[in-house]
Amino acid sequence: MSDGRSLDPADWNAFRDLAHRALDDAIDSIASARDSGAWQEVPVEVKRAIAADPLPVNGSTTQDVYAQYRDLIAPYSVGNRHPRFFGWVHGSGTASGMLAEMLTASLNVNAGGRDHAAPYIERHLIAWCAEMFGFPASASGIVTTGTSMANLIAVIVARQGALGSTVRQTGIARASERGELVAYASSEAHGSVAHAFEIAGFGSDAVRIIPVDATFRMDLRALRAAISADRARGLQPFFIVGTAGSASVGAVDDLAALADVCAEERCWYHIDGAFGALAILSPEQRSLLAGIERADSIAFDFHKWMHVPYDAGCVLVRDGTLHHASFDDDSPYLMRSPHGTGGGEPWFCEFGPELSRGFRALKVWFTIKEYGLARFGDLIAAQCRLARETGALIARTTPLVMLAPVTLNIVCFRYAPRLAEKALDAINAQIVLDLQEQGVAVASTTRVGGKLGIHLNVMNHRTTKADMALTLNEVMRLGEAALRALQPTG
Amino acid sequence: MSDGRSLDPADWNAFRDLAHRALDDAIDSIASARDSGAWQEVPVEVKRAIAADPLPVNGSTTQDVYAQYRDLIAPYSVGNRHPRFFGWVHGSGTASGMLAEMLTASLNVNAGGRDHAAPYIERHLIAWCAEMFGFPASASGIVTTGTSMANLIAVIVARQGALGSTVRQTGIARASERGELVAYASSEAHGSVAHAFEIAGFGSDAVRIIPVDATFRMDLRALRAAISADRARGLQPFFIVGTAGSASVGAVDDLAALADVCAEERCWYHIDGAFGALAILSPEQRSLLAGIERADSIAFDFHKWMHVPYDAGCVLVRDGTLHHASFDDDSPYLMRSPHGTGGGEPWFCEFGPELSRGFRALKVWFTIKEYGLARFGDLIAAQCRLARETGALIARTTPLVMLAPVTLNIVCFRYAPRLAEKALDAINAQIVLDLQEQGVAVASTTRVGGKLGIHLNVMNHRTTKADMALTLNEVMRLGEAALRALQPTG
Repeated sequence: MSDGRSLDPADWNAFRDLAHRALDDAIDSIASARDSGAWQEVPVEVKRAIAADPLPVNGSTTQDVYAQYRDLIAPYSVGNRHPRFFGWVHGSGTASGMLAEMLTASLNVNAGGRDHAAPYIERHLIAWCAEMFGFPASASGIVTTGTSMANLIAVIVARQGALGSTVRQTGIARASERGELVAYASSEAHGSVAHAFEIAGFGSDAVRIIPVDATFRMDLRALRAAISADRARGLQPFFIVGTAGSASVGAVDDLAALADVCAEERCWYHIDGAFGALAILSPEQRSLLAGIERADSIAFDFHKWMHVPYDAGCVLVRDGTLHHASFDDDSPYLMRSPHGTGGGEPWFCEFGPELSRGFRALKVWFTIKEYGLARFGDLIAAQCRLARETGALIARTTPLVMLAPVTLNIVCFRYAPRLAEKALDAINAQIVLDLQEQGVAVASTTRVGGKLGIHLNVMNHRTTKADMALTLNEVMRLGEAALRALQPTG
Repeated sequence: MSDGRSLDPADWNAFRDLAHRALDDAIDSIASARDSGAWQEVPVEVKRAIAADPLPVNGSTTQDVYAQYRDLIAPYSVGNRHPRFFGWVHGSGTASGMLAEMLTASLNVNAGGRDHAAPYIERHLIAWCAEMFGFPASASGIVTTGTSMANLIAVIVARQGALGSTVRQTGIARASERGELVAYASSEAHGSVAHAFEIAGFGSDAVRIIPVDATFRMDLRALRAAISADRARGLQPFFIVGTAGSASVGAVDDLAALADVCAEERCWYHIDGAFGALAILSPEQRSLLAGIERADSIAFDFHKWMHVPYDAGCVLVRDGTLHHASFDDDSPYLMRSPHGTGGGEPWFCEFGPELSRGFRALKVWFTIKEYGLARFGDLIAAQCRLARETGALIARTTPLVMLAPVTLNIVCFRYAPRLAEKALDAINAQIVLDLQEQGVAVASTTRVGGKLGIHLNVMNHRTTKADMALTLNEVMRLGEAALRALQPTG
């Protein structure tokens, strides 16, 4: 408050100086992303310093806190800005994304409701996304923290579609007297699908795990058989998940065939396209996603293949009315007015579980407008090409073995000299650890058909051919070293 | 990629120039928050320009996108930075919070897991929060987007506590064969509590709405009666919500008495302290929250009374093991390693529904360290004093009438000349609209005992006594004008 209590800086000029210095440091750190190691462990003394910091009763200065950030945090980031960060499925961020987040925080908008610029931008962004995926203009959507939340929202909306609006009051046990609801997803589907069913009260057993074929796509005959068996038992199939880009190997289900099954079986068709959905922007990958336009809902991330800073995802819902009815809220303190600050219906808090919510849409809007969809399409195509080339090189390099075909941008392989399975698992885990701990590259591990493999997600916009070659060379070098250490051959 | 495809700026210097300019503009806009209107409608031509912008196939320049942000978005923010923004319960943000968000975005950390600085900071922040509320060191917690998500997480954990770990697989219908679970919250409780029960599959009917007393606190006799009645019907009471700062009027339940009821009835004790929980930092308000340290879980926001930029909230859970068991995940692509990038267990993605998640903890850590808890305590005490003084002034000003006592910082009243209830509702709605549309102040409306009232949340750190006086004068002026327009008196 103006009697000295306001949290505004006592000296705006000093704050401004610091902020500009911090901005320069931040830009430098992005511009030099290649120069540091791909990962470095947080030193023990830094961990101790963080943990020993007592609950701050008295404050400090912005300058001091920034200095601590620079010493304790900035150098020990997870590394996904680095061109040889291939672990899991991480986006790399952009300098412009940082700029947009700074603007968002300066506005400090609560984008849950009310009449101001943010909801107009978010609504328009949703319209763009609907157009990208061939959804009708009547579709709805909301920017989420990511696909986990987007999947959950889709399950809640589909549940209401199956059980009727009274489910919000009576719960699923009473509403589903016609027969328990069951859902279907492939064994490659992301864990957040099962989590969504846990949270929604159905339990993960309600999700039938359908096996995949040799290309890691859902086996459609097995799907039909599972649906028949469930119907025969008096259960009610209601939800089928198509995966567009699986987390382990990047597989894409046959989305058009799944659309047919959903139409025949009158099931809600949800597509988890966390990272893969955006491959629709690439002319070379687009056909892989044929059928996505027939989904009832699509979940995907902006913070992966669009490199928007964490976190930002989206859910699109074909039936916008049902989506709204699944979350609307007539609390007295949310009373709407025909105009004024309390106008601007519908409010975004009625399309998801969050009442207060940040203006995540701005960084996405900023990113799409600056780069344009064609640029992302080119980038995605190039990365998929690079992944394919890397896969081909692996296939002809002894003793490397591919564990899955490269569908999109994920390369999953192992260093596989003639050894027992257990020893191979150990060697490959060791290679991944050594790559990380030597700061060379960050790969992650996964299991494919029970075999521990090395997972490379070729997504970073800074990654070059040379980075892939260097990484494979290092895998070979580390594999040989691990082999010598574990079990001297010959 | 280095073959011209990287999303890094083609010209780092040009980017740097723009970023510094944007930073100056952003700082200016915060420093001059008082100078613009408290709210201004988005002009029709701006709405049209946003909606007419075609899906960007080709990109633009950072400079152009920033210019559009400056023209279309920045001037039409919701207004909560302004010292006379009293609507709903919004925090005001800070300049340092903006700086911290810029840093977060520069790092682009996925704080869902892995071994890097972010989880050490978040874990330590959770430890600070546990200490703030008198929770044991074994408590767990996670930074969320806000209290809506924090409430949902608490319900999921409590559900698992009541039904056992198999609920994750079998769902609530099978797990609750001992009797349907029921919960209790006051009629003042926030809508997100009922939403959480909807999402979790119980339905909002599972939440018994307990009436409040004259000070808007839960009626404990009614609570005990409802629990007995439910037990008599074979239902299983399992969850009681204490509200610390209700959204409409800022009421705080008798948290110690509720703790006793929870102990006797063996119910999970959850406290929704979205904004009110942080009043524990004020020596003058602290006693109102006595008993909060006995909760099983506490949900609260940092983006309200700590003014951290949107969005950031928290859930604390006394039983950290149960919390972890409610969300843990053994997906193969999340395989942990004993050290390396894949180390650092437990991962935060196992304490909530989100796998990918932003490093929200940084801005909270930054804010707490810079200002210190004592400063927030002083600020909160001063704002509660200002709200009480405003309430007292209203009570002695004809024809203003208080609709609820001022417990914390919320003033709820109406302009109430002798008129029919319906006309009073209309006049007060009109006053709020006029305040907003004339840019004077943003109040919101709510209903208290069926009566439409004017809701002032005295939370902005820039608000002065003079702002309160000006706002009340304007309410009187606008009330008189509305009265003349609607129904000439006398």
